[in-house]
Amino acid sequence: MARKNAFYAQSGGVTAVINASACGVLETARQHPDRIAKVYAGRNGIIGALTEDLIDTSVESEAAIAALKHTPGAAFKSCRYKLGSFHENRAQYERLIEVLRAHDIGFFLYNGGGDSQDTTHKVSQISAELGEPIVCVGIPKTVDNDLPITDCSPGFGSAAKYLATSLREAAFDLAAMSRTSTQVLVLEVMGRHAGWTTAACALAAEQEGDAPHVLLMPEVAFNEDRFLAKVTDAYKRYGNCVVAVSEGVKTPDGQFLSAGSKDAFGHAQLGGVAPLIASLISAKLGLKCHRAVPDYLQRSARHIASKTDVEQAYAVGRAAVEFAIAGRSAVMPAIRRISDAPYRWDIVEAPLSKVANQEKLLPPDFISPDGFGITEAARRYLAPLIIGECYPPFKDGLPNYVKLQNAAVPEKLASTFTVQALTTAGG
Amino acid sequence: MARKNAFYAQSGGVTAVINASACGVLETARQHPDRIAKVYAGRNGIIGALTEDLIDTSVESEAAIAALKHTPGAAFKSCRYKLGSFHENRAQYERLIEVLRAHDIGFFLYNGGGDSQDTTHKVSQISAELGEPIVCVGIPKTVDNDLPITDCSPGFGSAAKYLATSLREAAFDLAAMSRTSTQVLVLEVMGRHAGWTTAACALAAEQEGDAPHVLLMPEVAFNEDRFLAKVTDAYKRYGNCVVAVSEGVKTPDGQFLSAGSKDAFGHAQLGGVAPLIASLISAKLGLKCHRAVPDYLQRSARHIASKTDVEQAYAVGRAAVEFAIAGRSAVMPAIRRISDAPYRWDIVEAPLSKVANQEKLLPPDFISPDGFGITEAARRYLAPLIIGECYPPFKDGLPNYVKLQNAAVPEKLASTFTVQALTTAGG
Repeated sequence: MARKNAFYAQSGGVTAVINASACGVLETARQHPDRIAKVYAGRNGIIGALTEDLIDTSVESEAAIAALKHTPGAAFKSCRYKLGSFHENRAQYERLIEVLRAHDIGFFLYNGGGDSQDTTHKVSQISAELGEPIVCVGIPKTVDNDLPITDCSPGFGSAAKYLATSLREAAFDLAAMSRTSTQVLVLEVMGRHAGWTTAACALAAEQEGDAPHVLLMPEVAFNEDRFLAKVTDAYKRYGNCVVAVSEGVKTPDGQFLSAGSKDAFGHAQLGGVAPLIASLISAKLGLKCHRAVPDYLQRSARHIASKTDVEQAYAVGRAAVEFAIAGRSAVMPAIRRISDAPYRWDIVEAPLSKVANQEKLLPPDFISPDGFGITEAARRYLAPLIIGECYPPFKDGLPNYVKLQNAAVPEKLASTFTVQALTTAGG
Repeated sequence: MARKNAFYAQSGGVTAVINASACGVLETARQHPDRIAKVYAGRNGIIGALTEDLIDTSVESEAAIAALKHTPGAAFKSCRYKLGSFHENRAQYERLIEVLRAHDIGFFLYNGGGDSQDTTHKVSQISAELGEPIVCVGIPKTVDNDLPITDCSPGFGSAAKYLATSLREAAFDLAAMSRTSTQVLVLEVMGRHAGWTTAACALAAEQEGDAPHVLLMPEVAFNEDRFLAKVTDAYKRYGNCVVAVSEGVKTPDGQFLSAGSKDAFGHAQLGGVAPLIASLISAKLGLKCHRAVPDYLQRSARHIASKTDVEQAYAVGRAAVEFAIAGRSAVMPAIRRISDAPYRWDIVEAPLSKVANQEKLLPPDFISPDGFGITEAARRYLAPLIIGECYPPFKDGLPNYVKLQNAAVPEKLASTFTVQALTTAGG
C-alpha cells in the first residue's frame, strides 16, 4: 500500500492527558515508516487544516515526543470550531480535502469529544464522495466522560482523581475550621450536561459521614427546598457540609441554575453556580460558606493524573494509528471494560456513526434514590478509573512540561482560506 | 526538673503541613518521657483549653502519629478565636490557667499565625503573674507567610508550590484554547493583606512570555487603567493572558477591591475578587475570561506539598518541644536562612515579643517597578521554598490520610466555661 502522510489534530476543551494520546499517535506512526511518512499536526485543531497551518512533527526529538505523555494542555493547540453540515458548509469541507490532498495526507486522526467525532465521520464520508477516500479515525477525549460506547473517555479519570483528591483535602480543612469559621464548602465541578465528574467527587468518601455530603448533578433537577433540607441534615449530623455542584445543574424547567447569575457589571455570569449555591445557603440557613471553583485547574492537573487514564489515553492514540494503517475508516478506538475488580480493559473499534452527536449521561441506577449521591454501581464503575499515580518529572520544584518547536510545514496552495466567524461551540 | 504534661493546639486557618508540626511535637515529646508525661491537645485550638475539652494523644499509635506528617487539615481541629487583652478578658485567662494547672500542664505549645503568637505571649506573661509560670512556646504556621523574624512560615511553601504548579498547568490549557475560546484566566489567591502567595505564582514562569503575565498584590494599590493596559499588552504579545490576583488587593484608598461585590442575594460577597477582575476585563477589553478560585484547595493540597516546607514544619514542632524542656518561654522557633543556593537553613529562637501582632508584607524590592510582577531578589527568596516533592501514600487512587481517635481526657474541674460569642477574627 502507498506511503502517505497523516494528519493529527486536537479539538475542544483540553485535558491533562490529551497529549498522552498525541504521544501514542506519534510514537506509533514512527514505528510504521513504510506506511506513514510524516505526521502533520493541525495548529489549533481543524483550523490548522482549513488555513493550511500545519506543524511538522518529524522535526521533534524522540525525547520531546515522549515528554508529551506527561504534559497537560494541547501541544499543537486546540479549537472550539464546528464544521457544521456538509450541505451548508460545502466550501469548508472542499477546502479541507484540498489541503489534505495537497500535503499527500492519507490518514486523518482527530482527537476530541462528541463534536469532533462527528467532524471525523463527515470528513470520512465527504472524502469518499469527492473521489479520494481518506482513512479517518476519531480519538476519544473529554473530561466530561459523555462519549457513548467507550467505557470511559480519556481525560475523565484524571479530572476525577484531581477532584476526589482535592475534595478530600479541602474537607479535612473544613472539618478543622467549622467550629468557629466556615461551615459549608461548595465545590464547583465542570462536566457540562453530564454529572460524571461531580459523581466522581463521591470517591473521596470512605465511610458514612465523610465528604462530600451532597452532590448536585445535571441529571437531577434542582429543588431548593429539598437541597436546603439535605444540607441542614448533613450539617447537623457531621458539624460541617461539603457540596459538589455541577456547572450544568438545571432548574426543573431545564434552564441552567446559574443562568440568572449576574456579575458586578450586570452581565450574565457563566460558570457561577458555586457562588450562587453558597449565597443561597448563607441566606437561607445562616451558615458560613466558602466556595472553590477550580475551573481549568481540574482538567489540566497533570501532576495528579490517574495512571489508568494516562495509559488509556496513550492506548487510544496508538490504536488509532493501527486502525488507520489497517485501512479502518470512520471508526474510533473505544475502551471496553472486561472486569471491575481487578480492573481489566482492552481497546475495541467503535463505528463513528454510533459515536457522533450522542451524549452519555449518568444512568439512573448510578444516582442514589434521593438524587444527592451515587450508588454502589456507580462506585464500582468509577473506582478503577482513578487508580495509580503517574507523576511528571519535576525541575526546580515544579512539573517539567515540554513545549514543542511546532515548526510550520511550507504551504503548497496558492489560495488562502479564512475561517468563518469563530464560535465557542464544538467539543 | 519536674515531669509535667504538655498542652498543644492548632489555631487559625490550617495548612497542608500544620500536622507535620504536630508530628514533630508529639514524636519529640515521646522521646523525653522524663520531662513530658503526656501531650494533651486542645480540641478546636484554645477553645479546647477554655472548655476543658482536651484530647489524650498518648493513646495514638506511633504509626498514626507518623501519618500526621503527610495529612492536611488540623488533626485536633483549629479555631478562629482571639483571647483579647488581659485587662478586658481576665476571666478567660484565669480559666485557661485553671484548666492547665488542673491537668498538671507545664508546657503550653500553640501552633498558629500572628494572633496565636500573641496569645502564647500573653499566656506566658499571665501565668507568671498568677504565680505559677508555664513554659510557653509558639510554633509558626501560615500560608500567608506574614510572620516576622522567621525566614518563612511553614505552610507557605506548600501553598506556593500548589499555586505555581496549578498556574503553570492551567496556562498550558489556556494557551491551547485561546485561538477560539478563553483568552484570559484570572486565578484568585489567598494571603489576606500580604502578597506572598500571589508573588509565588510567578515561579511558574521560566522565560519571557510565560504565565503569569500580571500579578495583583495587596502591597500595590489597584489602578484600573494601568491594569487594563497591562492585560492588553500581554494579550497582544502572547495571545493570551494569565492574571494572579490576591484576595486582599486594595483600592488606592485602602478598601478591599472586592468589598463592593454583591452576591445574587445582594449580600456582600467575600473573596470574590477573581469574578470582579474577570468581569472588568470582559466588559472593558471584550476578552473572554475564565476565573479559578481554588480557595481551601490551595492550603490543603498535601498531595503536592513542598518537601522543604514539610521538613521545616516538622523541625519547628520538634524545636518547640526542645525549647520548652530547656525552659525557654515566650519564644518561637524561627527558620533562619543561611544561603539561597544551595538553600541552607536552621532553627533559631525568636522572642514572642517581637513576633506577636506584626505583619510581614512583601518588601518593595521584591516588587517589579511596574507593580505587576516580582524582582530577581524575590525569585531568589521564593525559589528554594517549593523544592522537593513529598507525596503522601495513596490507597485506591487517593491520598491515604489519617484520622486520629481524639479520645477525650476526663474532666477534672466541676466548673464549666462558655466561650464568648465566637468571632471569625484571629489567625
